[in-house]
Amino acid sequence: MSSTIVAASPPDLLRRLESLCHGRELGSLASRLGELAALVAPDVARFEDATPSLRADASAVERGARHLLDLGGKRLRPICVALTSRLGTGFDARALDLAVAVELVHAATLLHDDVVDVGDTRRGAPAARMVFGNAISIFAGDWLLIDALRRVRAAGIEGVLERLLDVIEEMILAESLQLERRGRLDTSEAQWFEIVDGKTAALFRWAVFAGGRAGGLDPARCEELERYGRHLGIAFQAIDDLLDLAGDPAATGKALFTDLREGKLTYPLIVAQRRDPSLNALLARALRAGEDADFGEVRAILDRTGSLESCRALALEHAALAKQALDALPPSPARDALATVADATVHRPT
Amino acid sequence: MSSTIVAASPPDLLRRLESLCHGRELGSLASRLGELAALVAPDVARFEDATPSLRADASAVERGARHLLDLGGKRLRPICVALTSRLGTGFDARALDLAVAVELVHAATLLHDDVVDVGDTRRGAPAARMVFGNAISIFAGDWLLIDALRRVRAAGIEGVLERLLDVIEEMILAESLQLERRGRLDTSEAQWFEIVDGKTAALFRWAVFAGGRAGGLDPARCEELERYGRHLGIAFQAIDDLLDLAGDPAATGKALFTDLREGKLTYPLIVAQRRDPSLNALLARALRAGEDADFGEVRAILDRTGSLESCRALALEHAALAKQALDALPPSPARDALATVADATVHRPT
Repeated sequence: MSSTIVAASPPDLLRRLESLCHGRELGSLASRLGELAALVAPDVARFEDATPSLRADASAVERGARHLLDLGGKRLRPICVALTSRLGTGFDARALDLAVAVELVHAATLLHDDVVDVGDTRRGAPAARMVFGNAISIFAGDWLLIDALRRVRAAGIEGVLERLLDVIEEMILAESLQLERRGRLDTSEAQWFEIVDGKTAALFRWAVFAGGRAGGLDPARCEELERYGRHLGIAFQAIDDLLDLAGDPAATGKALFTDLREGKLTYPLIVAQRRDPSLNALLARALRAGEDADFGEVRAILDRTGSLESCRALALEHAALAKQALDALPPSPARDALATVADATVHRPT
Repeated sequence: MSSTIVAASPPDLLRRLESLCHGRELGSLASRLGELAALVAPDVARFEDATPSLRADASAVERGARHLLDLGGKRLRPICVALTSRLGTGFDARALDLAVAVELVHAATLLHDDVVDVGDTRRGAPAARMVFGNAISIFAGDWLLIDALRRVRAAGIEGVLERLLDVIEEMILAESLQLERRGRLDTSEAQWFEIVDGKTAALFRWAVFAGGRAGGLDPARCEELERYGRHLGIAFQAIDDLLDLAGDPAATGKALFTDLREGKLTYPLIVAQRRDPSLNALLARALRAGEDADFGEVRAILDRTGSLESCRALALEHAALAKQALDALPPSPARDALATVADATVHRPT
């Protein structure tokens, strides 16, 4: 065991998981987070050890990829792989490959998204494209994707690579749909779900499917897990949408109203549009010019119409559905921890 | 057999293959090209039928990808798959999957390269990024790459997917190296070879390896084929470098001096720098400002130093090495056709 494992010991991991939610303020959730951290700490330490490290002569592409990985992040998707593998035979070398792969796919999409969205910051630091340029960010995303696929291939678990290729296609087509709807005021709730299912929920779905398969669970059980992953992903995105409009930039690492500035209608805005049609004129101006002056009034309409609360209710509903999907599983610390992940996801700091 | 097969009958294919070289002017090469066309025409027709077609509700990403595929191209890499499969058991459904995959990987790299290089035209038409935007081009490249990998996975031939993942990584790292050297005057011949090995030769290497494996050839024979593919790729790139400086834009579909404008030192320029150091000052200005005025003098130095001829000699040398790698194979129409491909590659119109 190397010193890296000491570095990612439970207190450190707990701090990171607490960044996921106001654990300390939520009584029982705080102690459940402690149990989750204790359970997955060794897995996360092995994960950090296994992500690609830089050789002295690393290319710009490798440095660009590493820049993003070093910014940390919650490692929520690898934790999903670890916990679902622990529902079965445990977090072995093959499950570790899959945990690294899911984070690399996620990082690859962030690198390409930052170029597409002309994003300046990521996780509170300059985006890779600001440090290394758009070109390197594109190739770094390509490289991480290929590295991820090689690891999944090496794990050699039947059906898992095929499923990942399907999921990545879903992600790309959802990003395409989001792009086509950029700057438009007529995005419906149904279209929001279609986009979120692909761009966010699909990879959570794969994470728990892959972890379950690595743990030797049968396909029927893995399908139940996918239901968990899908609802977790929707809950996660609903909270992300909320934080864009009413989060604390110091905690989220991202300026308020970034999605709107990028021409994306988030869930609370879609709801508020329906409840107060006067929002449309404001949004049209914000989408056209991105003037800061209008955002205060947008926020006022969101508050007045209770749209942020509706978004939180949506997140809570899907967290509950995620936990419901766990009901068929026999009781175990890993099952409890998956329930904790769902609860923590919807109690992120706002 | 569908009408598409009639559409890509030998005369049409022959015309396309002749665009590869001045076949009519080269005596025996003209008749050999006719034999090549007759041999692979049914394979190319099946290939065109099997590339992704557009559904009525196709996403922007799919339309962006199709835009590039519809611009045609020489289909040289799929032809390499077809011919090497015909060295063995023939161009069956699995070989067809691999032929489509290699063209999709190639198209994916073109889509990303055009964004990276801010390229305006491709194959004599507006690049996908000019029609659909950078964002769609990035996702369209991602989508084609995933589609290619799914096809290779579906073909299910041992070792072929792993090799493709390795090759794509080589391509990305070579593109990264090329980016790092962009705008610099001190690129050596050794670095040129390193870049070309990855960005061009690697995919030719995979095409012939994959075709050979699909045809049931043993691994040792496939390694010889890879030698053919590598030398063919280097010859191909040397001619590409030549055409950038002295080609006919109407035939190449690309303006003269595009590589230099993008800050890339091509082989003839590297050679000419060594032979006439006064070129350095000219290149420095061209790389800084991209002023058209200097290109005439660059061309004069290339002519005076015989650097274009040296580049052609390099291409001929590698075409000869490619053909040499075929010597160990038993005589067959497919082997002859592979030799024709090597000869035609170095006699493209200038």
